[in-house]
Amino acid sequence: MNEIMKQFAIGVDIGGTNTEVGLVTFDGEIRGRRRFNTAIHPTPESFVMVLKEHISLLLAGYNISEVAGIGIGAPNGNYYNGTIEFAPNLSWRGIIPLAEMVSEATGLPASLTNDANATAMGEMIYGGARGMKNFILITIGTGLGSGIVVNGEVLYGHDGFAGELGHTIVFPDSGRRCTCGRDGCLEAYVSARGIMETYQHFNHKEAEKETITTIDIAERAAKGEEAAIKTFDYTGKILGLKLADAVAFSSPEAIFLFGGITRAGDILFNPVKHWMEFYLLDLYKEKVPLLPSALPHDSAAILGASALVW
Amino acid sequence: MNEIMKQFAIGVDIGGTNTEVGLVTFDGEIRGRRRFNTAIHPTPESFVMVLKEHISLLLAGYNISEVAGIGIGAPNGNYYNGTIEFAPNLSWRGIIPLAEMVSEATGLPASLTNDANATAMGEMIYGGARGMKNFILITIGTGLGSGIVVNGEVLYGHDGFAGELGHTIVFPDSGRRCTCGRDGCLEAYVSARGIMETYQHFNHKEAEKETITTIDIAERAAKGEEAAIKTFDYTGKILGLKLADAVAFSSPEAIFLFGGITRAGDILFNPVKHWMEFYLLDLYKEKVPLLPSALPHDSAAILGASALVW
Repeated sequence: MNEIMKQFAIGVDIGGTNTEVGLVTFDGEIRGRRRFNTAIHPTPESFVMVLKEHISLLLAGYNISEVAGIGIGAPNGNYYNGTIEFAPNLSWRGIIPLAEMVSEATGLPASLTNDANATAMGEMIYGGARGMKNFILITIGTGLGSGIVVNGEVLYGHDGFAGELGHTIVFPDSGRRCTCGRDGCLEAYVSARGIMETYQHFNHKEAEKETITTIDIAERAAKGEEAAIKTFDYTGKILGLKLADAVAFSSPEAIFLFGGITRAGDILFNPVKHWMEFYLLDLYKEKVPLLPSALPHDSAAILGASALVW
Repeated sequence: MNEIMKQFAIGVDIGGTNTEVGLVTFDGEIRGRRRFNTAIHPTPESFVMVLKEHISLLLAGYNISEVAGIGIGAPNGNYYNGTIEFAPNLSWRGIIPLAEMVSEATGLPASLTNDANATAMGEMIYGGARGMKNFILITIGTGLGSGIVVNGEVLYGHDGFAGELGHTIVFPDSGRRCTCGRDGCLEAYVSARGIMETYQHFNHKEAEKETITTIDIAERAAKGEEAAIKTFDYTGKILGLKLADAVAFSSPEAIFLFGGITRAGDILFNPVKHWMEFYLLDLYKEKVPLLPSALPHDSAAILGASALVW
């Protein structure tokens, strides 16, 4: 078997609701993709069995010897151990050795990391961070995730759980309650939920609570609505402050923002940039561009997971 | 010339007042050391000339071919460029290509980094972090410095200036003025100056302002003085909070504290540990030991600088 034949990677993105699988070329072209329900599988065993079937269907017409391996992005994924550990959004309890299970079921090498680290890998291999050795990627969605790249490698730290910037603390003791049980985490302010809460604070229209999205708020800000503008300024101030801290930590070449909310464009980026520069130590000012992810939003998770393989 | 002959490194620690030079073996034994005044040299050229003379004196009885190189620790040192850049404590202005100047003057390879990174190198090569691939070292002195080691290498980041945890922000907008010109930096609270200011706050005896040291405050805390105990609790709370953030960033195997104030022992370490654990995300709790540096205080800077060579 010639190494040159390995032209594909399989990317698996495990979400609390759905799992997506894609067959990806080295250039980041997705040759095929499939989606199935994660939540209906009470055990990881039945999940892996179904995943294997979807992989077989994806590979119809291709030879499995052309596949270099399987990369998996999963909540609470640990790269070192190939495990999913106590993921609150999945119904599987405890520590699941998923990479090993997938490798045994398919006969292919498999590795696993968390969603944000996978997206950072995708950004480095296929996206806007090509050629960069030091950058930070922030994913803003239901929560706030981060992937930190240092010397061309994702920072996993001693135990594989580095890069939890969503759970650095902005307001110790007095801040909003976070899903992690502590008070005042970055994620409690800069996430879909956090931005909505900020908007409710400035808007005072409780009736709208359930009916609008963060993109709606961005559109209102673009139209000049004061509460919406204040919401993005406040969000930008808090994210800018913690990005300034992050720069003092790892001095990245650039910071990427990823997630649906980045479609808000300048409405989001301008206040974040303004406050990040405001809080940066002189040494770093105007040196660290804040950029939107260059990965297509609907393929980023699969691309990121597949990037683990290369 | 046989590589096996290179049994020495020269470590140079440049401080605002004095410079120390040492001849160090691979095992961290200091075979000789010399000290001279930094501040009297109006230009880096005259400093380098005098440094060269001290190195020659240190090498009396040894052959220069036994020396692997020169490592320099300096304020605002940039490892990538070998430069000292805009160091506020030195009288040399602008960007000084010191590593190159020293190398040209001595004929030996020379590299340079900042004081805290040098100490982290020393900890890894000769001290308590031997065998560790991921750790953080915090130096508490006039200011607060940090050296972050990731995958066995000091984290320099994109431009060589990573690891400025002293200038991450604890109290945005409303905190104490820091020497960097911004408000609320960690260093404004956790440093000799910061601890003294906290003590004045709790003690209310203005008359004592100039006459006591942080070690005096530690002794008073050990004897049960309330203001001194409150000072260390407050210092520990702020440092613990920011160390919890740092753990969420790089997930280190351990955190080391270095500097004269660590002689306070439990008086310092207990509150820092307590608050760090309090603020840590569950994922990291009780996993990251907080340790005193194992480097001898009076040789740490020379050892650290020399560790750059290996």
